[in-house]
Amino acid sequence: MRDRAEDTRRLAELLVGFGADVQPGEIVGMTAYLGQEELVREIARASYRRGAKWVDVLWWDPWVKRARIELAPEDSLDYVPPWIGGRMRWLGEEHAARVSLVGPNPEAAAGLEPARAGRDVLPFVKEIVEVVNAQTTSWTAGPGPTVPWAEQVYPDHEGDEALDRMWSEIAHVCRLDEADPIAAWGKRMTTLKAVAARQTAHRFDAVRFSGPGTELTVGLLPSSSWLGAEFTTVDGKRHFPNLPTEEVFATPDPARVDGHVTATKPLEFYGSHIDGIRVRFEGGRAVEIDADDGADALRGIASKDDGAARLGEVALVDGEGRIGPLGTVFHETLLDENSASHIALGNGYTIPVEDEADRERVNKSAIHTDFMIGGPDVDVDGVTRDGERVPVLRAGAWQL
Amino acid sequence: MRDRAEDTRRLAELLVGFGADVQPGEIVGMTAYLGQEELVREIARASYRRGAKWVDVLWWDPWVKRARIELAPEDSLDYVPPWIGGRMRWLGEEHAARVSLVGPNPEAAAGLEPARAGRDVLPFVKEIVEVVNAQTTSWTAGPGPTVPWAEQVYPDHEGDEALDRMWSEIAHVCRLDEADPIAAWGKRMTTLKAVAARQTAHRFDAVRFSGPGTELTVGLLPSSSWLGAEFTTVDGKRHFPNLPTEEVFATPDPARVDGHVTATKPLEFYGSHIDGIRVRFEGGRAVEIDADDGADALRGIASKDDGAARLGEVALVDGEGRIGPLGTVFHETLLDENSASHIALGNGYTIPVEDEADRERVNKSAIHTDFMIGGPDVDVDGVTRDGERVPVLRAGAWQL
Repeated sequence: MRDRAEDTRRLAELLVGFGADVQPGEIVGMTAYLGQEELVREIARASYRRGAKWVDVLWWDPWVKRARIELAPEDSLDYVPPWIGGRMRWLGEEHAARVSLVGPNPEAAAGLEPARAGRDVLPFVKEIVEVVNAQTTSWTAGPGPTVPWAEQVYPDHEGDEALDRMWSEIAHVCRLDEADPIAAWGKRMTTLKAVAARQTAHRFDAVRFSGPGTELTVGLLPSSSWLGAEFTTVDGKRHFPNLPTEEVFATPDPARVDGHVTATKPLEFYGSHIDGIRVRFEGGRAVEIDADDGADALRGIASKDDGAARLGEVALVDGEGRIGPLGTVFHETLLDENSASHIALGNGYTIPVEDEADRERVNKSAIHTDFMIGGPDVDVDGVTRDGERVPVLRAGAWQL
Repeated sequence: MRDRAEDTRRLAELLVGFGADVQPGEIVGMTAYLGQEELVREIARASYRRGAKWVDVLWWDPWVKRARIELAPEDSLDYVPPWIGGRMRWLGEEHAARVSLVGPNPEAAAGLEPARAGRDVLPFVKEIVEVVNAQTTSWTAGPGPTVPWAEQVYPDHEGDEALDRMWSEIAHVCRLDEADPIAAWGKRMTTLKAVAARQTAHRFDAVRFSGPGTELTVGLLPSSSWLGAEFTTVDGKRHFPNLPTEEVFATPDPARVDGHVTATKPLEFYGSHIDGIRVRFEGGRAVEIDADDGADALRGIASKDDGAARLGEVALVDGEGRIGPLGTVFHETLLDENSASHIALGNGYTIPVEDEADRERVNKSAIHTDFMIGGPDVDVDGVTRDGERVPVLRAGAWQL
């Protein structure tokens, strides 16, 4: 059996000491699911050892949520208690560190009526977006392995065996198997930031993906930089919003995406399995959507609202990324989107975009659905304003 | 093995359908500890089935609390995050139903430095007292059995065996072993309320305890009624603040308690075991405190502040009460105080007291420590204003 207690300690140290960079006197706001107790307690201990003033844990139970979705009166399902958003604003006012754990519970979500389930997005509240945009908190999100999640990811394993396997993969992708994980992440982020800076310096007009079944040009907003997932608060404190992270990303021009693309990995979307995705774009819009499996689910996503058929994100992942080579589908965006270069239908990020006029053009939608289009067989070029193609990724290696 | 799932369902129904009397459209505020998941989820389901609008669970983890007490900076230990009290006020404004689960976790509390542990009383916040006094919420507190608690109560049993034994006793004292527990409680409360009303009608000046090692007169505030633990909100909604409850109680005159008393049960106080308690009162004050075991701990409690050596509560429990005959010490006031007639050093209740002048005389203290002084061998009399003694309890049976 794996020494999961040691894995837990190392992941807690990474999230506290690197991701959220907890400092003496800080409040540490956490959101976690029941089932993630051991990791939460290690994070609390690691935070207090660093001198945290107060570790504030919001526990969320997927089974109480299931009770609501199954049984609560129809007209009550949109209700959001005010204190949850109030707590998030307070964490913002306190310039807190924040650590959120992700990890789906497929058992607690199984068989629920989608229309009812979709109305309860708690513990997400709109105040999280406010606080993230205000850049007042140093936040990070990391995975919190549980047995039900592990049994979904590794259907041939059960219980402790599945959990051991998940921890071995999580430890690897979080670089906990390095002698000094924080130093390893420092090195990795230096690479990604240098790549992002070089791509930004080229001021590419677009990025071009070419591979089996793929010839796609994604236009960029002129003032979009390329960024690695390293943020800085208004207080100048560096933090890493996602751990693991392998991507450099930019914000596309929602009106300039053309060509066709074939997904290189399956997509799991709230219980729908979508495989062999093929999409044709014209003038920024996904005008044809096909798939070997689950095409209707993807068409449903893309017709959710005006922005749902246009792109909000383009991100590049190189062959050094540790998630893609595993071949594991984690059913969790934090991990799956970092497995390969990807694009996302739906809402876009303003953070990489400098000019106010460009910011207003960032795609808007209620959805943000990533799907993976990169891999060793897919070449990525930057396209300059005068049409020159500059190699960016070849066989998973940076060329710039 | 016991059918604990059935026990859990029946206790949830009692707390939701009787204790807090959840009605359609109501918000249900819960406070519970990690380890009580199954009962919390049943309470959520039972509440939603009755049409609750939203079940709001505040989960508390005794192990995260332990991390704070062990490791947090000395000057941070009094900090209370504002949202916890804010949430309680919101439950008051919403005229919510409230269900709190009790149950100590001796493992998570073991060996902590008392001076540091005493500074963190969360999840208790002062706003709970405000909301209780405003009588806006229909609230109840019940036991939530867990393995660590059960292993403390039944040191000869382990794990599931200890938990089964605890559930069998909890089911009995909560009258879940009756065909219709809510009807059984209705009947029991009718008896206790009738007894309380008869005692109130006598307008006793004092109550007298006589038994082995006990001759104690407890003066009552002139306008104090006797009450059973059945409350009514400002909206006229009936609720039962404690389940189980076996007592009728009144508020003593803190200046008129005289004689000596010998406790009939041991007292567990935050890890101190106090046995064979003997106290002599003069003019309301405990002037001599002895015990076979732990006398210093009790003396420490009684010297905490001005009111800590005077009485805040006197309560009578008859032989029909189900906790006392078990002989079990639950290490939890909700259960232990209902095992026998008792008095409490420290803070008193204003709810039974009608006159404003009397209310101001109710004992005030930071502590409220119950200890059991009743039993089949202890006679209880009411003493009228002209000194006549009227039998109230003989061999555990009501005489009025």
